[in-house]
Amino acid sequence: MSRTPRILRKKTGHFLEDFVPGQLFRHKLGKTVTEGLFATFTEFAMTTNPLAKNARYARVYGFEGLLCPPGLVMLVAFSQTVEDVSENARANLEYVDMRFGAPVYVGDSIEVETKVLGVRTSASRPNLGIVHVQSTARKNIGEPGEAIVLTWQRKVQVYKDDDAAEAHAGEIPPDEIACSLWLPPYDVSRDYERLAHLSNADTYFEDFEPGTRIEHSRGRTMTSEHIALTAMLDNTSQVHCNQFMIDQDPAQYVGGQLIIFGGIPFVLCLGLSCPDVGDNALGDLVYTTGRHAAPLFAGDTVFAATEILGKRDLPGRPDVGVVETRLFGHKFARAEGESHADAPKDWRKVQIFELDRALVVKRRSHYA
Amino acid sequence: MSRTPRILRKKTGHFLEDFVPGQLFRHKLGKTVTEGLFATFTEFAMTTNPLAKNARYARVYGFEGLLCPPGLVMLVAFSQTVEDVSENARANLEYVDMRFGAPVYVGDSIEVETKVLGVRTSASRPNLGIVHVQSTARKNIGEPGEAIVLTWQRKVQVYKDDDAAEAHAGEIPPDEIACSLWLPPYDVSRDYERLAHLSNADTYFEDFEPGTRIEHSRGRTMTSEHIALTAMLDNTSQVHCNQFMIDQDPAQYVGGQLIIFGGIPFVLCLGLSCPDVGDNALGDLVYTTGRHAAPLFAGDTVFAATEILGKRDLPGRPDVGVVETRLFGHKFARAEGESHADAPKDWRKVQIFELDRALVVKRRSHYA
Amino acid sequence: MSRTPRILRKKTGHFLEDFVPGQLFRHKLGKTVTEGLFATFTEFAMTTNPLAKNARYARVYGFEGLLCPPGLVMLVAFSQTVEDVSENARANLEYVDMRFGAPVYVGDSIEVETKVLGVRTSASRPNLGIVHVQSTARKNIGEPGEAIVLTWQRKVQVYKDDDAAEAHAGEIPPDEIACSLWLPPYDVSRDYERLAHLSNADTYFEDFEPGTRIEHSRGRTMTSEHIALTAMLDNTSQVHCNQFMIDQDPAQYVGGQLIIFGGIPFVLCLGLSCPDVGDNALGDLVYTTGRHAAPLFAGDTVFAATEILGKRDLPGRPDVGVVETRLFGHKFARAEGESHADAPKDWRKVQIFELDRALVVKRRSHYA
Repeated sequence: MSRTPRILRKKTGHFLEDFVPGQLFRHKLGKTVTEGLFATFTEFAMTTNPLAKNARYARVYGFEGLLCPPGLVMLVAFSQTVEDVSENARANLEYVDMRFGAPVYVGDSIEVETKVLGVRTSASRPNLGIVHVQSTARKNIGEPGEAIVLTWQRKVQVYKDDDAAEAHAGEIPPDEIACSLWLPPYDVSRDYERLAHLSNADTYFEDFEPGTRIEHSRGRTMTSEHIALTAMLDNTSQVHCNQFMIDQDPAQYVGGQLIIFGGIPFVLCLGLSCPDVGDNALGDLVYTTGRHAAPLFAGDTVFAATEILGKRDLPGRPDVGVVETRLFGHKFARAEGESHADAPKDWRKVQIFELDRALVVKRRSHYA
Repeated sequence: MSRTPRILRKKTGHFLEDFVPGQLFRHKLGKTVTEGLFATFTEFAMTTNPLAKNARYARVYGFEGLLCPPGLVMLVAFSQTVEDVSENARANLEYVDMRFGAPVYVGDSIEVETKVLGVRTSASRPNLGIVHVQSTARKNIGEPGEAIVLTWQRKVQVYKDDDAAEAHAGEIPPDEIACSLWLPPYDVSRDYERLAHLSNADTYFEDFEPGTRIEHSRGRTMTSEHIALTAMLDNTSQVHCNQFMIDQDPAQYVGGQLIIFGGIPFVLCLGLSCPDVGDNALGDLVYTTGRHAAPLFAGDTVFAATEILGKRDLPGRPDVGVVETRLFGHKFARAEGESHADAPKDWRKVQIFELDRALVVKRRSHYA
Repeated sequence: MSRTPRILRKKTGHFLEDFVPGQLFRHKLGKTVTEGLFATFTEFAMTTNPLAKNARYARVYGFEGLLCPPGLVMLVAFSQTVEDVSENARANLEYVDMRFGAPVYVGDSIEVETKVLGVRTSASRPNLGIVHVQSTARKNIGEPGEAIVLTWQRKVQVYKDDDAAEAHAGEIPPDEIACSLWLPPYDVSRDYERLAHLSNADTYFEDFEPGTRIEHSRGRTMTSEHIALTAMLDNTSQVHCNQFMIDQDPAQYVGGQLIIFGGIPFVLCLGLSCPDVGDNALGDLVYTTGRHAAPLFAGDTVFAATEILGKRDLPGRPDVGVVETRLFGHKFARAEGESHADAPKDWRKVQIFELDRALVVKRRSHYA
């Protein structure tokens, strides 16, 4: 072009002053679960529940095919809210009342909408505040099998665009969302016992004892793979994938490096706990609360532990029970200034994640 | 074996003296688009057009399912020509008249053939010359739905195997290839408006103003993932994946390190521009010309910008229009000898890619 | 929880004293081949056989669709045995009599069982011994198309949990497993010749000469991607993915770094050899013996070579013949203490892998 063009640079995401209690975001894109997405995240997370690994096992149990594990459902749904809700966030403060609904299979298309429940300014930090939202994910809208697959609230610390702007402070009650975990019916004519060798023998409902803390035996080192994983989820936040932005002003960013998207340790902790806690679960019922306690970077190795908090019956389903747990994620960090070449004596354990999680677990009496 | 074996080392690819104007290469392998390939590249490129993300959206628009974005079609087709045409190339000089045809879906099998249009020796550099080729990609040959999906020309600087060899200089005109973008019919009975929230509200035909340059807001840092991505495309060139070859003689190779296959920044720039330019496009019509201006390496962060060059009607289709653009890719590089630990003040912008690109874009009047 | 929880840390895998000749392990999970898994490993390995790349080619040949290449079948089956057999192994000593059976397609669910054939203690090293096992992989158990897809033996050096424990020494003969390579019938009405350009013209049965060693021309550099690839295979061994464990006591681990799972170079060598040896094969018949000779690490570049050992007819199938080969993998290593910045003169070739491999190869007389 001969003339100097007019320069356009679009603002992305919303800022504190843009949120209004009661406001509804219908998020963009939507996302169909392909076998590529399914394989990448199910395997990344090291899930060991055969429902997500072995289609003939899942079919015998009454599912239509390979079942998306809860962590994948959460990632596909949650990520769709990032651009509207948290692209300009400082921190994701808390997950609240995350409840699973219909099962998600390969081929399902997930779309999400979010209602703003509350906006609160910070007294001490006038440039940010807290936004409280409620999100709901549906599959196959307008097609056969339309259903709610996940609903949750979260609280996010969001920056203002203009520090002098007035926020729309206020709080409204959450909507009642009819979302409860779908379970395949128990059917005595199905030969569950012949499949019992495909899951661990000591993770049935009868095996869990409240007051136990299970230190899961495996760890997993994260690499720069997290950049591609985050893109695969349509998470648009630049702190996960734009190294140039970090290099321009490292002091501005946590750790002075690309931070790993919180959804990654979320699902990895679920997966690391799976052989000890989840491989005889028919599904995850609810995450009542959860939060990230410290950032994760490429090179860190993630570990997990689970405390068994309680057990209860599930009304109308004598074949299963609910196990209430607290899932922890941690890594080990070295003192400031030490390199990997130093003596390995000064590692300290750093908690990175915590999730109150209730699972629906099969009873040995009915399945093995 | 008891005896010393006879050693065989096969030559791969062709050299300048092997090309003859009029010659036809029917490339090897072919490639079926699996959901794994689809997910990997669609997500890598950060495409935001719902036609490539959300199957129920694509079906309402009249596509059979998730639509392969133009960058993926280009990668799958182009890569098949590398071994025969450019495995022994010094540089890919220009993409010319790349036109899209039938839509490509998961499950389609793509095969490509290439005709040599011209061969020219270099006056100043007798060990190489320029080969001009025309390639055409078809899907599902001999099966229902056989169709042309892409045709293009390119000019490549290719080495001689024997510097003294005579090249078959000459030039013939390109074939007429019946390849024009398939568009789903506009159908007033379809409820496009109910899907309008799934794409950006400000990227309809009416929104583009010639004379505007849009600096796309997001960047993406490349990692060594490019090695696996390139293998996934069957690109056989060793400069992308054989570090030992580079280490043997670093001075011989651009930058002394593995260079990222040009197809990678090509699709990444398409993707980075998508939220501002492409998410209400029904397809890419033609890339009239394009070229790589500088190499890309692991660690570089890629950015993109688009200049709106012009707009025009598409005869017979009042529901859409053609937007003519120039897509730019760039990265930032530091002065020679500086390390990442240095003060971040001396970055300079380096253009890496340029593509003249016409898109068929929906009109708000008809779709939203 | 108010009280200090009881800490539970489960032991994973088995130790030398746990193995008893005649004992049967029915391995956990099973694994369905998704298009994600298929694409990741087929492409990673740089396979060039069109049966695994181009579905319409595979269908003309009489397969149901894209054919899982032998390396992928091996990886999916072998990995399922790791937790029970070799999670506590020091080394995988030998692959023996690995025979392929029914073809594996996307959608097939693979499950594996392993019989212990022998247990032997080490005279010199009382803390370990050798376990000899026979494994068999079936697909779609209890569903239409149930079939054996792979059977093999291997010998593994396994640690004791308690050095004072007595091992159950002994040896029993292997079971007869009815597993032989399924081949699509040769059908003169199929138009094989029209597809001949999709594979290399010089890799038919007639082209192989015993006494030849083919140095395959391409190399492939491994990156930290191996961590994700190994997780994708459900391989549970921590030496591949837990950097913190290595950093705690580097001297304890080979090379003081994460070691790449042996299945990775196994399939990569198959792939690197494919354009010269395997792209006109209808399948791999048997791997009579194989072993890993040296470890592979991120940053190493893998190369391969094939010696043609012999050729023979396949009874009843005049359209094909059996080519007996020995496949070698190697890398180049530098002298201790040298960095990549040093002069590149002191590389030495290190053999990493060896496999005696018989392929069923098409005859040009029948197919081209």
